[in-house]
Amino acid sequence: MAETNKKKMIKLACTGLGIILFASAVVFVFSSSKLYSQEDEDRALLERAKTFFAPLTEKVIDNPQNPVTPEKVNLGKMLYFEPRLSKSGFISCNSCHNLASYGVDNLPTSIGHKWQIGPRNAPTVLNAALHTAQFWDGRAKDLEEQAKGPVLNPKEMASPHEGFVVDRLKSIPEYVELFKKAFPEEKDPLTYENVAKAIAAFERTLLTPSRFDNFLQGDLNALTKEEKEGLKTFIEVGCTTCHRGKGVGGDIFQKFGLVKPYYEVIKYKDKKQIDIGRYAITKNEGDKYVFKVPSLRNVTRTYPYFHDGSVWSLEEAVKIMAEIQLGRKLTDDEVKKIVAFLKSLEGEIPEDALKLPVLPESTPQTSKPDFK
Amino acid sequence: MAETNKKKMIKLACTGLGIILFASAVVFVFSSSKLYSQEDEDRALLERAKTFFAPLTEKVIDNPQNPVTPEKVNLGKMLYFEPRLSKSGFISCNSCHNLASYGVDNLPTSIGHKWQIGPRNAPTVLNAALHTAQFWDGRAKDLEEQAKGPVLNPKEMASPHEGFVVDRLKSIPEYVELFKKAFPEEKDPLTYENVAKAIAAFERTLLTPSRFDNFLQGDLNALTKEEKEGLKTFIEVGCTTCHRGKGVGGDIFQKFGLVKPYYEVIKYKDKKQIDIGRYAITKNEGDKYVFKVPSLRNVTRTYPYFHDGSVWSLEEAVKIMAEIQLGRKLTDDEVKKIVAFLKSLEGEIPEDALKLPVLPESTPQTSKPDFK
Repeated sequence: MAETNKKKMIKLACTGLGIILFASAVVFVFSSSKLYSQEDEDRALLERAKTFFAPLTEKVIDNPQNPVTPEKVNLGKMLYFEPRLSKSGFISCNSCHNLASYGVDNLPTSIGHKWQIGPRNAPTVLNAALHTAQFWDGRAKDLEEQAKGPVLNPKEMASPHEGFVVDRLKSIPEYVELFKKAFPEEKDPLTYENVAKAIAAFERTLLTPSRFDNFLQGDLNALTKEEKEGLKTFIEVGCTTCHRGKGVGGDIFQKFGLVKPYYEVIKYKDKKQIDIGRYAITKNEGDKYVFKVPSLRNVTRTYPYFHDGSVWSLEEAVKIMAEIQLGRKLTDDEVKKIVAFLKSLEGEIPEDALKLPVLPESTPQTSKPDFK
Repeated sequence: MAETNKKKMIKLACTGLGIILFASAVVFVFSSSKLYSQEDEDRALLERAKTFFAPLTEKVIDNPQNPVTPEKVNLGKMLYFEPRLSKSGFISCNSCHNLASYGVDNLPTSIGHKWQIGPRNAPTVLNAALHTAQFWDGRAKDLEEQAKGPVLNPKEMASPHEGFVVDRLKSIPEYVELFKKAFPEEKDPLTYENVAKAIAAFERTLLTPSRFDNFLQGDLNALTKEEKEGLKTFIEVGCTTCHRGKGVGGDIFQKFGLVKPYYEVIKYKDKKQIDIGRYAITKNEGDKYVFKVPSLRNVTRTYPYFHDGSVWSLEEAVKIMAEIQLGRKLTDDEVKKIVAFLKSLEGEIPEDALKLPVLPESTPQTSKPDFK
C-alpha cells in the first residue's frame, strides 16, 4: 500500500511537473510567437512603406544651377529676414513664412502690402526644396524662380521692380561685399537673379527629418503603436496615391476634388471665390481645380489647411481629403490613427536657421520705405 | 700737423657724437613728453566723461517687483516673438522692435493693425531697461507697464481686451506650463499682468555694452582718436546736459525745442501733426513738446530720428539738436566728430536674444486670427 501510494505520488508529481512544463512551453511558444509576429508585422509595414516613401536626411538638396555654399546660405538667410526687400520696409519673407512657427504664418491666407489679403495659404518653406515645383499652382519651377515672386507681387512685398530691390541692396556696402563672396566668379554679383539664388540656397538647407525617417531607415521602434497603425491606415486608405516620396507629397499635381467637387464639401460662402488652380496658368481644361499636392511634413504645425486655409482642424482636413479625393468616409478611429501618424512627420527646424541675423545698416543712398 | 689734425678730428668726432646724443635726448624727451601728454589728455577726458556717464555691463537691470529668472526670460522671449498676441495673428513685438535691426523697424513711424500708421517712431528695446520711464511721453513707469500697451492698442496689435489675450494663451497647453514655471508661486499664473512681466524680464536682458564702456572702465585705447575728440566735443557742446548716465540719455524728460521751436527747424508739411508730447498725459502747460530724452546707445542703427522719425541722417539730427536744444550752430567737423563718438555706442545684441524661439501650436480652442 505504502509502495503503491509512493508510486501514485511519484506518478502524480510527474504528471504535475509534466503539466507545468507543458504549460510553460505553451506560454513560451505563444508569447514568443506573438513577439515574433509583432516585429514581423512592423517589418512588413516598413517594407510596404518603403515602396511609397523615401527617408529624408539633413543632406542639402542641391540645384546644379545654384550650388549651395556657406556664403550663399549666409547671405540668403539675411535676405530672408530682410524687410527692405519690400516697398514698405516692413515685410520680409519671414513675415509670412515665419521660421518661429514652422515656416508659415498660421493664417488662412497671408497679409501683404497695405494689409491686402492674399488669395492662397502660405505654404511652409521647410522642405520646400523637395517639391517638384513651387507655389500652389506650380507656376515656378524651383525655389530660385519662386523667390522672385513675392518680392515684386503688389499684394505681397510690393517692390515696384527688380531694379528697385537691386538699388536698395547696392546702397548698403555690407550687402555688396556679401554678394561678391557668395558669387565670386561674377562681374556684377548683386543682381535680382542672385537675390533669389541666395534666398533659395538658404531655403535648401531647411530640411526637417523626423521620427518617420528613422522608421524608414529601419528603426522599428521610432514610431509608436498608434503611429504605425496610422501609417498602415494611411497606406490602405490610399492617401499614398498622392502623398508619397521623400516629402510625403509635393511631387505631383492633383485635382482638388477628384471624386467629389470640394466646394460641395467645404461650404464656401462666396462661390465666386472658388480657386480654379493650375488652370489659370496652363489654360488647359484638365487643370481646373488642380493644385500641387502639398508635402505633409510638419503638417501638424502648418494649419489652417488647403490652398485657401479654409479648414483649421487636421482631423477635419483628413476626413475631407478621404471624401473628395478617395470617395471614402473614414471612421473617427481611422482619422485619429492617421493624425497620429502625421504627427510623426514633425521634424526639428535646423538650429542655424533659427539664429536671427543682424542686418546691415542703410545709408543715405538707400531708398526710403514707402507705405503707399 | 698730423698731431693737430688728429686732435681736430677727435674734437670733430666728439662734437658730432655730442650733437647726436643731444638730438637723441631732445627727440626722446620730446616724444616721451608728447606720449605722456596724450595719455594725460585721454585720462583727463576719461575723468571728465565719468562725471557724466556710467559704464554699462551685461548685468541684468532687475525690477524688485519682477525679478528676472531664466524661466521668465525664456517665456518672455517666446511672447516677444508671438504674433498671436495680436488680433490678426500677424504682428508680434518683434514686428516693430525687430531684434535683427537693433530692436527697431527703421521706419519713420510703425505699421500696425490694418496698416494703420502709428503716431511716433518705435524706440529700440535694447537697453530700454535703463530708462526712467517708457514710451516717448513716459506714460508707462517701467517695461512691465509698457509691455501691456501695444498689445491692446487698436492701432498696433489691436487685441480687443486683456481676456482675449489670456484666453488665447490659455488655449495652448505649452504656454500654460511655461507660465506655471515662470510664476511658480501663483495660483493662476497665466494673467495679462504676467504676460507683460515675462516680456519685460526678457527685455531686461537686452543690454549692449560697447567700446565706450570699455573706455569708461579705464581702457584709454578702446576709442579711436576721432571718437575721443567726438566725446570731448559732445561734452563741450553740452549734449551731456540731457544725454548722460548709463544710457547716454533715457533718464530725464526735456522739451524738444528748448531754445528754438523744433517745427521751425524741421519743416513739417502739416502743422496739425505737431506732437505736443507729454502734455497730452499730464495736461501740465510746462509739458508741451516735452519728451523723454532718448538713449543714444546704438543710435547709429536706430534711424530715422526723433519722436516722429522725420530725420534720416544722424549728422542732420545732431545739427538740429544743437540748434534747437543748445542754440548752437555746429561746424561740419564738430558734427563729424560727434557722430564718430556716437558710433562707439554701438554694442552687440546678446546672442541668446537672437535665437528665434519655436512657438507652440494652437489648439481648436485658440481664437482664430481676425484681420478686421
